Amino acid sequence: MKLLVINPNISESVSDLIAAEARRAAAPGTEITMKTAPFGVAYIETRFESLIGAYATATLAGEHAPGHDAVIIAAFGDPGIDGLREALDIPVVGLTESALMSACLLGKRFSIVAISRRITAWYRECVQANGLVDRLASIRCLDRPLQDIGRVQEDHEAALLSLCQAAVDEDGADVLIIAGAPLAGLARSVKHRMAVPMVDGVSSAVCHAQTLVSLAPTPARGGSFAPPPIKPHHGLPEGIMRLLAPR
Amino acid sequence: MKLLVINPNISESVSDLIAAEARRAAAPGTEITMKTAPFGVAYIETRFESLIGAYATATLAGEHAPGHDAVIIAAFGDPGIDGLREALDIPVVGLTESALMSACLLGKRFSIVAISRRITAWYRECVQANGLVDRLASIRCLDRPLQDIGRVQEDHEAALLSLCQAAVDEDGADVLIIAGAPLAGLARSVKHRMAVPMVDGVSSAVCHAQTLVSLAPTPARGGSFAPPPIKPHHGLPEGIMRLLAPR
Amino acid sequence: MKLLVINPNISESVSDLIAAEARRAAAPGTEITMKTAPFGVAYIETRFESLIGAYATATLAGEHAPGHDAVIIAAFGDPGIDGLREALDIPVVGLTESALMSACLLGKRFSIVAISRRITAWYRECVQANGLVDRLASIRCLDRPLQDIGRVQEDHEAALLSLCQAAVDEDGADVLIIAGAPLAGLARSVKHRMAVPMVDGVSSAVCHAQTLVSLAPTPARGGSFAPPPIKPHHGLPEGIMRLLAPR
Amino acid sequence: MKLLVINPNISESVSDLIAAEARRAAAPGTEITMKTAPFGVAYIETRFESLIGAYATATLAGEHAPGHDAVIIAAFGDPGIDGLREALDIPVVGLTESALMSACLLGKRFSIVAISRRITAWYRECVQANGLVDRLASIRCLDRPLQDIGRVQEDHEAALLSLCQAAVDEDGADVLIIAGAPLAGLARSVKHRMAVPMVDGVSSAVCHAQTLVSLAPTPARGGSFAPPPIKPHHGLPEGIMRLLAPR
Amino acid sequence: MKLLVINPNISESVSDLIAAEARRAAAPGTEITMKTAPFGVAYIETRFESLIGAYATATLAGEHAPGHDAVIIAAFGDPGIDGLREALDIPVVGLTESALMSACLLGKRFSIVAISRRITAWYRECVQANGLVDRLASIRCLDRPLQDIGRVQEDHEAALLSLCQAAVDEDGADVLIIAGAPLAGLARSVKHRMAVPMVDGVSSAVCHAQTLVSLAPTPARGGSFAPPPIKPHHGLPEGIMRLLAPR
Amino acid sequence: MKLLVINPNISESVSDLIAAEARRAAAPGTEITMKTAPFGVAYIETRFESLIGAYATATLAGEHAPGHDAVIIAAFGDPGIDGLREALDIPVVGLTESALMSACLLGKRFSIVAISRRITAWYRECVQANGLVDRLASIRCLDRPLQDIGRVQEDHEAALLSLCQAAVDEDGADVLIIAGAPLAGLARSVKHRMAVPMVDGVSSAVCHAQTLVSLAPTPARGGSFAPPPIKPHHGLPEGIMRLLAPR
Repeated sequence: MKLLVINPNISESVSDLIAAEARRAAAPGTEITMKTAPFGVAYIETRFESLIGAYATATLAGEHAPGHDAVIIAAFGDPGIDGLREALDIPVVGLTESALMSACLLGKRFSIVAISRRITAWYRECVQANGLVDRLASIRCLDRPLQDIGRVQEDHEAALLSLCQAAVDEDGADVLIIAGAPLAGLARSVKHRMAVPMVDGVSSAVCHAQTLVSLAPTPARGGSFAPPPIKPHHGLPEGIMRLLAPR
Repeated sequence: MKLLVINPNISESVSDLIAAEARRAAAPGTEITMKTAPFGVAYIETRFESLIGAYATATLAGEHAPGHDAVIIAAFGDPGIDGLREALDIPVVGLTESALMSACLLGKRFSIVAISRRITAWYRECVQANGLVDRLASIRCLDRPLQDIGRVQEDHEAALLSLCQAAVDEDGADVLIIAGAPLAGLARSVKHRMAVPMVDGVSSAVCHAQTLVSLAPTPARGGSFAPPPIKPHHGLPEGIMRLLAPR
Repeated sequence: MKLLVINPNISESVSDLIAAEARRAAAPGTEITMKTAPFGVAYIETRFESLIGAYATATLAGEHAPGHDAVIIAAFGDPGIDGLREALDIPVVGLTESALMSACLLGKRFSIVAISRRITAWYRECVQANGLVDRLASIRCLDRPLQDIGRVQEDHEAALLSLCQAAVDEDGADVLIIAGAPLAGLARSVKHRMAVPMVDGVSSAVCHAQTLVSLAPTPARGGSFAPPPIKPHHGLPEGIMRLLAPR
Repeated sequence: MKLLVINPNISESVSDLIAAEARRAAAPGTEITMKTAPFGVAYIETRFESLIGAYATATLAGEHAPGHDAVIIAAFGDPGIDGLREALDIPVVGLTESALMSACLLGKRFSIVAISRRITAWYRECVQANGLVDRLASIRCLDRPLQDIGRVQEDHEAALLSLCQAAVDEDGADVLIIAGAPLAGLARSVKHRMAVPMVDGVSSAVCHAQTLVSLAPTPARGGSFAPPPIKPHHGLPEGIMRLLAPR
Repeated sequence: MKLLVINPNISESVSDLIAAEARRAAAPGTEITMKTAPFGVAYIETRFESLIGAYATATLAGEHAPGHDAVIIAAFGDPGIDGLREALDIPVVGLTESALMSACLLGKRFSIVAISRRITAWYRECVQANGLVDRLASIRCLDRPLQDIGRVQEDHEAALLSLCQAAVDEDGADVLIIAGAPLAGLARSVKHRMAVPMVDGVSSAVCHAQTLVSLAPTPARGGSFAPPPIKPHHGLPEGIMRLLAPR
Repeated sequence: MKLLVINPNISESVSDLIAAEARRAAAPGTEITMKTAPFGVAYIETRFESLIGAYATATLAGEHAPGHDAVIIAAFGDPGIDGLREALDIPVVGLTESALMSACLLGKRFSIVAISRRITAWYRECVQANGLVDRLASIRCLDRPLQDIGRVQEDHEAALLSLCQAAVDEDGADVLIIAGAPLAGLARSVKHRMAVPMVDGVSSAVCHAQTLVSLAPTPARGGSFAPPPIKPHHGLPEGIMRLLAPR
């Protein structure tokens, strides 16, 4: 099984974190192809940056999906996921959605721990778009400048753990979601220090992608996730054009 | 990996359907232990029958969970799932919950196709308890007597497919959930005849159980899914007592 | 009029509190039959304990309902209520549901004051299952070990009243619900010390049961609260079997 | 116990129907005082008519509440109920709210059967204001001119029953609410012809008023149902002024 | 274009504030007619006072609407708005509704800053009646006696601004709504001191009224905002009667 | 006042319809600059096409916003609106959002009439993202191939009007929203043939843009609509880069 993992941002250091956790999570026989956005921003905290990341992700997916069994959008917030799910005949999963599904299978209410205050509004809207806001106990966040997006885990581990603890003690979280690709793998290393299960987006996405490949659903040819109807277009990059081509 | 699959009902013919689909869905190396409720009803359509099934499931889980890596409650409606999730230190998944999560990863709105009108109220409440009622496009159901609960698929395949078609055409379903253990495996055999992905509870539950075992979450010692506090009890069967014992 | 009041737990001391408050609340001519679960736990704080209590309640109801006009499930959380409502031809009410209805008739938003932190998740889910979570201002709880479940009122009265006060001052409660059978009767004795109406589950349940008996609704023979369809079963206790018998 | 029943409309023929059903529903020892609005419209179908009815009801309540134990607002839609609940120190109940509470105690989802299409939007908003729209299976309505508001039951009984039947068969209603004061008492006479319980607003209101009087809640002096703060006013009728007077 | 602005309360000092802000907000060529309730209370904080204000507003609207292009109900909480919208053939807007719509066009989540604690329950219900409670970040309020309703802005400016700041910093507000006619114009004078947009009900209402007049929607002759059906009435003031007359 | 109107699609014929209606709706003194996407698809029906349109819109906005007072995203569905609202210091409105706000000011529940079945899922999600799904009575749609996107109004007027009629008669719509830029101006020409108000996205957007310019809110420097934090980026087109530049 081959999984295409796309970092919608331009930070190679974050791609390294993602790829490492993806490989730790993958079943034997699952191969990971890691791709980093060729254009965009260092990391996504806002709806506007997500709009850019969505376009970059789509472009990469159109170029590289052939030969893979599923695509993982490896930014929390899942930029472009619903669109790409229409445009591809293989399963597409995102970090947020995957973490939410894991959390739902482990408890009733979850909290999200995030890397910046600014990012929380976008995350909340993602939970709402997934229809799960009633199960959201809280979003808690770091509230200090990030020196190096590739080293957030090392620089802020203690602060992140105390956010986790507060979510359990004060917000009623049954499960903790450690959000954001820069925190990929943190849950794995600190989970024994928390009294409730911790969920990581990257490992969840790899496992759920494997599940979907294994279940082998037929690609949608009806409903609202069928491929976009064929119609005139122009000026689009090669990757996007491929996704609009007749099948 | 060893999965304990519990049929909360007394029908061995349904257990056979469940076990067969579970084994088809399982990864190499996953072993399935199938257990059928020693007491209860032939199949669950109502909240009262679910109450009975929950107790039977808990009793079986207490007796047989040791030595397994996860438990699957193999009735749509997931009788007793939240309680068992508290009482066991290994992951517990149910057919409804698992099918809902698969459906959420494949589209936005889903319809459920069920075996009797009576069962639909209980299913709707399960979707609500999962917080996903906004994504429920519809529940459609057979509306005729079932001669043999072990042969519903064969006896009613055409009717079930036309319910599926109507859910896509009239209700806006992006994904179809074929609900109820007696229909285990049907999605696998008919999926190529539908224009949208079809989801089956048993195969979804096996895959999600594998995912949870693979993610290896720590058992809850805090939050609302920690084991029930130790307190006096009496008159309980051996299986239940084990689940209340100090850890 | 004869009301069967079932304590889903094994604590006789709590049954005494319930029975005393039930008798204080009952109209002249209403007789109270009090029954205590023959098996189960000392008091219910979790979903798993509720599962056990539901089965015990059903067993008792099947044995003792004949000759009564209505059944009261006397644990906050109403274990098994929807199931029993299907299985009995007489009205069934629970403490939570009854307290919620009283509160809704006295104001818009209510707070629940509970005996332990652990119990709050289950209570919240009960409010949600009743569809009333938008009217829930807060759930506040004692957060200390309970020495004697039959003496919670005496041991913690001051703490309970200060939780009540905080719910009014900080959470916007129009009505206070004193939750849990071990607190039966407390609202009656302290209500003059609070600025908003206080509601007690036991007295509410007795009054609402009297109302339903007086309104004399026909038993459901359609809809989702009709008796479970007749089908094979085995291994069930006498009380449960009676509830599954043809009518 | 003395209950003040106010018809917010000017139709004496409807007041007669209300009073008759109220007396049938009342417990021995409960006295009914019936008052008809001295100004207003023949019956309320719209939000604007409800605004008028609310003012008339408040005026009457201010004049006549003294000496009574509770007030019943006897129009479905409960014009002015939340306001009056602030302004009076005795319980206030309305037909809609009371019928909803009875329905919630008898099943999970209910349908409302109403006397005109126009009235349904207002009813739906009342259910929403009560926070119970998730339990609303449907609102069905007569769709023909009403010749005589005092004879709707006789003129349209067959049509009303077929709306009831459709609500059970097609909409999934567990309980039927017969809405509107002009239909007061209909549920009592036809309930044996339906397979699910039927609820009537007037009898429900009488019973719930009796319950609240019996529970004897303290009048609100805090929260949002305390009396309106004392402040300057002018130009108000005597009845309204009394409700604004210091207590 | 002529706009009729109705203060549902009797305070001329507040009418002056409203009229001044309305004229500042109006486009060239828009004329403002200001009317103050001839009966009622000094300002509305509760549902009961709103009931009175609604009736006064309707009476004034019936008397003065002819010759105007739209009506503005100039109390936050919009007393009687849905009723008046039925009864008039010209657009009707209220301060709350208008402020909410402006806020929705400027961000995702908004906070409301109010003049008293008591008023907040009613405001929350108004937001709910508008269906927008999911976008409500918080309601914050002054919590001290108001000496002079016409001078709240001057007397409490610093406290109001610190409530605003807290709503942004702690509650996640993207937009601030300064609520209540007594605060009319405050947003205009302090907006440069806040980091997020501030919205005022009066200026929003004037602009939205202008928009509706410009869009020139046809008056409803169907749906639930058509004029109330013609039927008998009596005892009503001249203004109300005009609104019930056949068109 | 100068409004920049962006058609996120490549169809000049649709831009002509938009510009014509925008000019009809604009106040004297309002200038309309119309821009058509330089890349993309002929018209947007799906989430994937919306992703493309959002990127094109952002690029155009970055290039052309300077010198304008507000931006209108002229595709129903508002591709990229929340992102652009962060990235621009002038108001941004979209057709869906504007039409929803107009509809909310004219009634309680609205229906949307759309040009294709496929487009309806995306529209529904837009209404949900606006938090207004409880006020959505229905979405009805044409269900036949569109020969010429610039002539949908002429080709399908009768079918569109019968969808409108059905929404009023069967779905309870108080207001009709004619959705989709290809239908720009239709509401204006047919509104006298419907019994409820009709709303058009383009004219609503122009009016609401004028309102926001007139209210002159301060640009967000806090909350979740402040400009995205400055951080490294590369590979972006000039228009996008300008929107990420420090202010």
